[in-house]
Amino acid sequence: MKNKINKIQFNKRTSIVEIEEGYNLCPKFNKDNLLPCITVETKTKEILMFSYINKLAFKKSIETKKAHYFSRSRESIWLKGETSGMFHNIKKMFIDDDQDCVIFEVKLAKPTKGGKAASCHVGYKSCFYRKIEYKEGQASLKFTEKKKSFNPEKVYKGIPNPTKI
Amino acid sequence: MKNKINKIQFNKRTSIVEIEEGYNLCPKFNKDNLLPCITVETKTKEILMFSYINKLAFKKSIETKKAHYFSRSRESIWLKGETSGMFHNIKKMFIDDDQDCVIFEVKLAKPTKGGKAASCHVGYKSCFYRKIEYKEGQASLKFTEKKKSFNPEKVYKGIPNPTKI
Repeated sequence: MKNKINKIQFNKRTSIVEIEEGYNLCPKFNKDNLLPCITVETKTKEILMFSYINKLAFKKSIETKKAHYFSRSRESIWLKGETSGMFHNIKKMFIDDDQDCVIFEVKLAKPTKGGKAASCHVGYKSCFYRKIEYKEGQASLKFTEKKKSFNPEKVYKGIPNPTKI
Repeated sequence: MKNKINKIQFNKRTSIVEIEEGYNLCPKFNKDNLLPCITVETKTKEILMFSYINKLAFKKSIETKKAHYFSRSRESIWLKGETSGMFHNIKKMFIDDDQDCVIFEVKLAKPTKGGKAASCHVGYKSCFYRKIEYKEGQASLKFTEKKKSFNPEKVYKGIPNPTKI
């Protein structure tokens, strides 16, 4: 496995035409060596999550077909689903015009400790469970998911909440 | 208009419960004062673009219902469509669990200099017009859009290409 992952090569960025209209994968990692990654449910095209990946997380995701992301707070790669069982099984991957953002299209797995297939640590299917409303100069949030898919206290028992103030 | 935009307030981030399960908009801008933004076509749910917004671009987008983004290379706010006519008319907005990423759901406008409604400066509808394929240790790209929606040389004549090597 390790050898296979090491074998995956990202190409050099040689010209704008090559980057935008070529067939070579030449991703541009940002100044923190990260690439933004949008996760979408393959069945519904619903956006589930936004995160970052580094080179190794990208290679592991390509090779294992299980999404690996990079946690900026823990400064380490994490395999999505390792704790919860809610793996992101990658079905398709896309890259944008200037190759500085990717999409992972995934099939969701059910949490191992009960509940429906979901993605968000708060208990909802998608992390984007709130709509921004704007009326008379005031912005507020409205829930679009009415019910949680699983109980996060059960599924993530003893695990620190990744959300930071 | 300026007064209305100034009136929009983002709330303080006071607790994790409030951030994750509350009704107040309290976005977390990153160390560069930017918020990642995913743009989706409202009709098809297709992801069109990934970009960043700053506080003022976010407020302008909320108030005018036309997407304003922040260009990191030009270090300034841009109204999408200003040059091309391909405005992103915002229909819905979403925010994620920890409020550090937003989605703009938009209706696309046609380029003023001919062609179909599209979003990407290369000429395709979406910026994500290439799929990543992986076979025998080799990653490569395959086009998912066969034909450009407009001629970028006509629509963006004299405008520098935003893609950087």
